[in-house]
Amino acid sequence: MSHYQKLEQHFRAIADLDHAQAILGWDEASMMPSGGGEARARAMAALAVLVHQRKTDPLLREWLSEAEEERGLDEWQQANLREIKREVTLATCLPDDFVEKQSRACARSEQAWRERRAANDWEGMKPLLTEVVALAREEAAIRADATGLGRYDSLLDLFEPDVRSSEIDRQFETLRNFLPDFLNEVLDHQASKPMLPLGDHFSEASQRELGLEMMKVLGFDFKHGRLDISHHPFCGGVPEDVRITTRYSEGNFLQSLMGVLHETGHAMYEQGLPQAWRDQPVGTALGAGEHESQSLLMEMQACRSREFVTYLAPIARNILVDGGGDDQVWSVDNLYRHYTKVERGLIRVDADEVTYPLHVILRYDIEKPLIEGQIEVDHIPELWNEKMQSFLGLDTRGDYNNGCMQDVHWMCGLFGYFPTYSLGAMMAAQLFAAAKRARPAMLSDLQKGDFSHLLAWLRENVHSKGCLLPAPLMLESASGSTLDAGVFVNHLQRRYLAD
Amino acid sequence: MSHYQKLEQHFRAIADLDHAQAILGWDEASMMPSGGGEARARAMAALAVLVHQRKTDPLLREWLSEAEEERGLDEWQQANLREIKREVTLATCLPDDFVEKQSRACARSEQAWRERRAANDWEGMKPLLTEVVALAREEAAIRADATGLGRYDSLLDLFEPDVRSSEIDRQFETLRNFLPDFLNEVLDHQASKPMLPLGDHFSEASQRELGLEMMKVLGFDFKHGRLDISHHPFCGGVPEDVRITTRYSEGNFLQSLMGVLHETGHAMYEQGLPQAWRDQPVGTALGAGEHESQSLLMEMQACRSREFVTYLAPIARNILVDGGGDDQVWSVDNLYRHYTKVERGLIRVDADEVTYPLHVILRYDIEKPLIEGQIEVDHIPELWNEKMQSFLGLDTRGDYNNGCMQDVHWMCGLFGYFPTYSLGAMMAAQLFAAAKRARPAMLSDLQKGDFSHLLAWLRENVHSKGCLLPAPLMLESASGSTLDAGVFVNHLQRRYLAD
Repeated sequence: MSHYQKLEQHFRAIADLDHAQAILGWDEASMMPSGGGEARARAMAALAVLVHQRKTDPLLREWLSEAEEERGLDEWQQANLREIKREVTLATCLPDDFVEKQSRACARSEQAWRERRAANDWEGMKPLLTEVVALAREEAAIRADATGLGRYDSLLDLFEPDVRSSEIDRQFETLRNFLPDFLNEVLDHQASKPMLPLGDHFSEASQRELGLEMMKVLGFDFKHGRLDISHHPFCGGVPEDVRITTRYSEGNFLQSLMGVLHETGHAMYEQGLPQAWRDQPVGTALGAGEHESQSLLMEMQACRSREFVTYLAPIARNILVDGGGDDQVWSVDNLYRHYTKVERGLIRVDADEVTYPLHVILRYDIEKPLIEGQIEVDHIPELWNEKMQSFLGLDTRGDYNNGCMQDVHWMCGLFGYFPTYSLGAMMAAQLFAAAKRARPAMLSDLQKGDFSHLLAWLRENVHSKGCLLPAPLMLESASGSTLDAGVFVNHLQRRYLAD
Repeated sequence: MSHYQKLEQHFRAIADLDHAQAILGWDEASMMPSGGGEARARAMAALAVLVHQRKTDPLLREWLSEAEEERGLDEWQQANLREIKREVTLATCLPDDFVEKQSRACARSEQAWRERRAANDWEGMKPLLTEVVALAREEAAIRADATGLGRYDSLLDLFEPDVRSSEIDRQFETLRNFLPDFLNEVLDHQASKPMLPLGDHFSEASQRELGLEMMKVLGFDFKHGRLDISHHPFCGGVPEDVRITTRYSEGNFLQSLMGVLHETGHAMYEQGLPQAWRDQPVGTALGAGEHESQSLLMEMQACRSREFVTYLAPIARNILVDGGGDDQVWSVDNLYRHYTKVERGLIRVDADEVTYPLHVILRYDIEKPLIEGQIEVDHIPELWNEKMQSFLGLDTRGDYNNGCMQDVHWMCGLFGYFPTYSLGAMMAAQLFAAAKRARPAMLSDLQKGDFSHLLAWLRENVHSKGCLLPAPLMLESASGSTLDAGVFVNHLQRRYLAD
């Protein structure tokens, strides 16, 4: 057996443990009764330790350097070797005792946050967050040493391989200059187009039926996945068995439906990963941004198009109000207005397509200097408020709950993740534009509920590639251009001001 | 760290892997879409290998012999040491290549059975079953060498520790002599008491509601468990998070309800295992017979009593027919007749409390000489037919599907398991009789839907003991007598002929 083959075998065994972790994680969020939490946490930690031991096995260094000398590896094998090396480097560069200390501090801080947030208690949160930030800075410094990247970039690279903050700065500059004025225009424009309320009594069963129906329309493969409920919608499981979730509120069917369409985009990426390589690092999805591009392409680009809403409106009406309902309320126009409603708001997860990037840029503007030591935890609330004022004209002074304490990310030590949401939005616009160029009838397909051409294009250009190409090359090869906020900007202008 | 403590630590790590296996197994049967099967099988096999490696770690022999010399172990620790030794012996005595060969042959045979059974094709099944039997005989011989037990006993001991076939012979003799004539009497007796049909349109939602309601009444702890659906009802998961399942058929609510009550009995045993010892072998349930005694105690002893049916009837009527229905149909008398209806039938899993042991004895009478080499696979159909004639007066010639091919057990290499069903029935009668002696008001408690005294008695005398006492001693200590088919016989006489 060649050294390369030994590596494949080793990572195949890791994939089996990943499978167990993925299903247990899904179960914890969607099925597990509360009393099962402690035993589950122990079992999950035990699996994590086994995976970590395998990724840091001292033999791997030797096999890697031998394998790099081996001839005759094809392009997939070479890419797999690159991805294996990346995983080994990421796993080995932090000392075990540091990882343990950090994961304890993060767990403590996240737990405290659940209570402190509800109490709007920033002072109580500060010492815990300060410790988490100190450890994140330490991690960034260690990773920067190991990778040769800058400190913030070394964290960003965990979620978005091969994309650097200099590139993000450039793209965000475009959005930063464009969005605030554009937002005012859109709000003015929409003020002249009032919406009729959609009603507020939609049974969970009918919302679920509509969600399942739309998953089928989009192309979700139910032989390899299912839909359930969790507190926060997510996409979990394994490519052979993708588990997505949503949540239902009687008063708002758009929320559960959007959750389903979004997660279906994530799920179809997983379901389309290359069959032959699913148990190897090269056969997994690219970064968090690319994953988000697939969910946003479905949710925002395809499913909020007027064409899709034209297809959806009578189906939704039929399922949700059982054939009844008012013609005006259930008109395509009215539903489309609800779908594309823009509002200034304090909360990122409730934000629309136009304001969302401003929430992300605000966080990026704070977390990057925070990790690089240019600002301290103490400065966060003031900076937050300044930026909310300048981006969205909203005052958050004293309202930590709806301000800098609203997200779990920093509280549990996740720095470098926020930008991937907007990277995803930009890539989604670029990929959808390319798909429409490849098939000019794409939007009229969607108007007939035919997603087959769109899915085939994504399968061929994105899903089936796994990590064969580094993320930026995949985007260029699939869309014809490198990262370009301009395409997203064009999309927003066409959707929000053209009619 | 003492050697005993090392063993505890080692088995704690195994318990975490057991947790993962248990939840993945439940998921496979109740949640997993069909396309997820292959990847799941690989992940489950990988976990099984990890557990096997840990149980056969060469260090364990050394730690065990050192620990046996250690002083100051309390009774739980001593019992734990005994259980650990048992698990290590069971895991180490079969050579790895034999285990692999056997598990492949059994998987092949089980798969073939699913098709051959549907085609009533005994000839097609025979070669596969013959291979499985040959390997089971080989396993029995190896285990008999390692344990000093007889060949059949060495397999029986896997499921029912410390109970021997000589004891089973004795108890089954009592039942064998009693049941056939008794059955005739009961059938005559019941012929004079016709039943009114209960209807055949009960929605899944209402059946589930009734099941959940009764689980609450019995004392199932929903903070540590849940109810779902699977093709065959079972009880899985872990003591902190017990997962039971049932299945629903619109035409027959008794089936789903009986499934739920039965599995709730299993589940409450798991939920009542000793908190401090759940991650150690001594903290697990005793054998399959003891587990079955807990399910049958709830389903058969408690919940088919006239007292419980008196409590159940108006609640079932209210939930299932929404307050409507006919007074005669939903009378306690009529429901009790359905509950206690006895019939001659071909299928074990559909059998009632009276005929069930005859199905079990028939199988025991065949599998014991089969394993010990006194008969061959070729002889099975003829023996089956002979015994069905003599026990139940039914002809099964040529009907393999409803005859010797009806159960999966032998087809997948499970020999020595069948008797535990009837051991469970006997123990359930003994334990319930003891609980009633301890609280004479027990049956009137049940008539009020109060299971608290029954559950408290089981918690104290059975559940919380784990494996502290060997199975036969637990039974004696809890019920006041050793295994005694006579108590079960008395129970049948009282229930089926007294009114």
